[in-house]
Amino acid sequence: MPELRKDPIIGRWVIISTDRKLRPSDYAEMSPPVKEETGGFCPFCPGNESKTPPEIYAVRQQGSSPNGPGWLVRVVPNKYPALRIEGELNKKGIGLFDRMNGIGAHEVIIETPEHTRQMHDFDQDLLEKVIHTYQIRSLDLKKDPRLKYSMIFKNYGREAGASLYHSHTQLISTPVTPKRVKEELKGTQWYYEYKERCIFCDIIEDEISRGERVVTVNRDFITLVPYASRFPFELWLLPLRHSPDFDSILDGERQNLALMLGSVLKKLMKGLCNPSYNFIFHTAPNRFLHPGYWQTIDKDYHWHIEIMPRLTRPGGFEWGTGFYINPTPPEEAAQFLRELVV
Amino acid sequence: MPELRKDPIIGRWVIISTDRKLRPSDYAEMSPPVKEETGGFCPFCPGNESKTPPEIYAVRQQGSSPNGPGWLVRVVPNKYPALRIEGELNKKGIGLFDRMNGIGAHEVIIETPEHTRQMHDFDQDLLEKVIHTYQIRSLDLKKDPRLKYSMIFKNYGREAGASLYHSHTQLISTPVTPKRVKEELKGTQWYYEYKERCIFCDIIEDEISRGERVVTVNRDFITLVPYASRFPFELWLLPLRHSPDFDSILDGERQNLALMLGSVLKKLMKGLCNPSYNFIFHTAPNRFLHPGYWQTIDKDYHWHIEIMPRLTRPGGFEWGTGFYINPTPPEEAAQFLRELVV
Repeated sequence: MPELRKDPIIGRWVIISTDRKLRPSDYAEMSPPVKEETGGFCPFCPGNESKTPPEIYAVRQQGSSPNGPGWLVRVVPNKYPALRIEGELNKKGIGLFDRMNGIGAHEVIIETPEHTRQMHDFDQDLLEKVIHTYQIRSLDLKKDPRLKYSMIFKNYGREAGASLYHSHTQLISTPVTPKRVKEELKGTQWYYEYKERCIFCDIIEDEISRGERVVTVNRDFITLVPYASRFPFELWLLPLRHSPDFDSILDGERQNLALMLGSVLKKLMKGLCNPSYNFIFHTAPNRFLHPGYWQTIDKDYHWHIEIMPRLTRPGGFEWGTGFYINPTPPEEAAQFLRELVV
Repeated sequence: MPELRKDPIIGRWVIISTDRKLRPSDYAEMSPPVKEETGGFCPFCPGNESKTPPEIYAVRQQGSSPNGPGWLVRVVPNKYPALRIEGELNKKGIGLFDRMNGIGAHEVIIETPEHTRQMHDFDQDLLEKVIHTYQIRSLDLKKDPRLKYSMIFKNYGREAGASLYHSHTQLISTPVTPKRVKEELKGTQWYYEYKERCIFCDIIEDEISRGERVVTVNRDFITLVPYASRFPFELWLLPLRHSPDFDSILDGERQNLALMLGSVLKKLMKGLCNPSYNFIFHTAPNRFLHPGYWQTIDKDYHWHIEIMPRLTRPGGFEWGTGFYINPTPPEEAAQFLRELVV
């Protein structure tokens, strides 16, 4: 059972992962290149369905059976989960310290049966199916009252922390609202109390009128390089319609999100020579469980996707201060990506 | 002039570094291995003093002249500083956003004239001189009323963000107290208000009595693996004597700090096969400038060094949540390092 431990000074939770326990000698063999398209066994390829835990959900061709080939998108529990769905939360103190059982969900969304095709090469229809799968899993996990937050994220490439090449996304649901999410919620709430407006809606309007940090806009979405980008070529992809929850996305919006995500990833891949990247869905917590505390969230929070190419490595300064050094002005990054034809 | 920009949502400052501006094509050529001992020009080697900006401070052999050979430890401004010492702070708003000129200091402490010797191989005398140099530079920078915080940190190895091989430490002074530091100060203050004790003093006492997370103790210092370690083999090196400021360290303590830092780095190098690592000095801000706000800090804050081997790469989950997944239980890491003979 993984264990959650809370830092007594700054209140940050850490998952001590017992399922994928690593001993000192394991680290010497780490950092292998992510298994490339050729050679090696891939547990995510069709025909190897028995090498993953049984599937939770799949988009399948008619007539195909669960846990066999014939799927287009497949969702399975992570074989080495950071958090486990079984058990009770069981919070307790140990002297100065706090711990909790590592309850939660850790799922893998296998986005395509094709081993070598990556998300920036997906056709529109597949990307829509993948986004729909995110939505379906996110809605389903909201039914578990132990889970406070679901985060959808992708690690592409070695520098971004990927360990398998076959295109996939992860979804982790946590029994506490993560610190970084709380900070964002606090910021948006503070702004709303002061202005009675959503800060993201204000930023979108401001950025559209300036234009200099906008990469692309369609009927439902905008992609921009944020004013205070931590990383070079960091991107935020936001819905134009105010909405706190990603999983309340409408059918037509899903189509336009797939169009924009595909085009933005193509731009990154072409313009920056296939960089590693992370993307992270920032969405509201499962707040129907906490009706009092989150009363303003429907008005003040605005879901979005943050995309971070891994072009520089954070050093001691970034780790120690929470301050970032970004060597590429956001306006130049935006202009470069805006003008790039894909 | 570098520019500081504040994220309007969570209040995080970012340095947009104009001096080391990188264009898209630069990233393709990045991530070269850190220049190894053989070959290549090194601006930190004796004889190449003219290739760095003029020195700020040096420990020199008698009769040698500034900016020539004959030094043992040498401090120079960073040639491509994240922040610059010249100019005015000049805070201003731009619509929704806040910016500030990038005023600050960015110094490099070249720790040895020998190109191939790394800190874990320093003799006791040199390590004491290096630590004394940190202290002298830290005290000197406190005289500048524009600077609120000085952070001493080391990036060793490529995974830790190092770009030059020759052993060195960096010191960055910032015109704002960094977010991550404020969080720590807030946590210690909150604990002090509640308990009227320093949380670090309590942790030290608790850890010594348990023993399971202690790596080593001497007369003045302790090294332990923190209860909620974010990273495998993360280490905290703390003074036993309560003191908020690293730069108030006494002569005898400096000796014992050098002893312990040297031995702990040797253990990491031997036990984990020469891993990349960062270390970061966590010390109180230059609070004599803010007598009201920081009134409790002398009692509640406790300086220390955090050492983080770079054995795993944070992915989207860590970036998005501020939650960390650590695959090695702290108790096992401590036992391994405690029993390792160096």
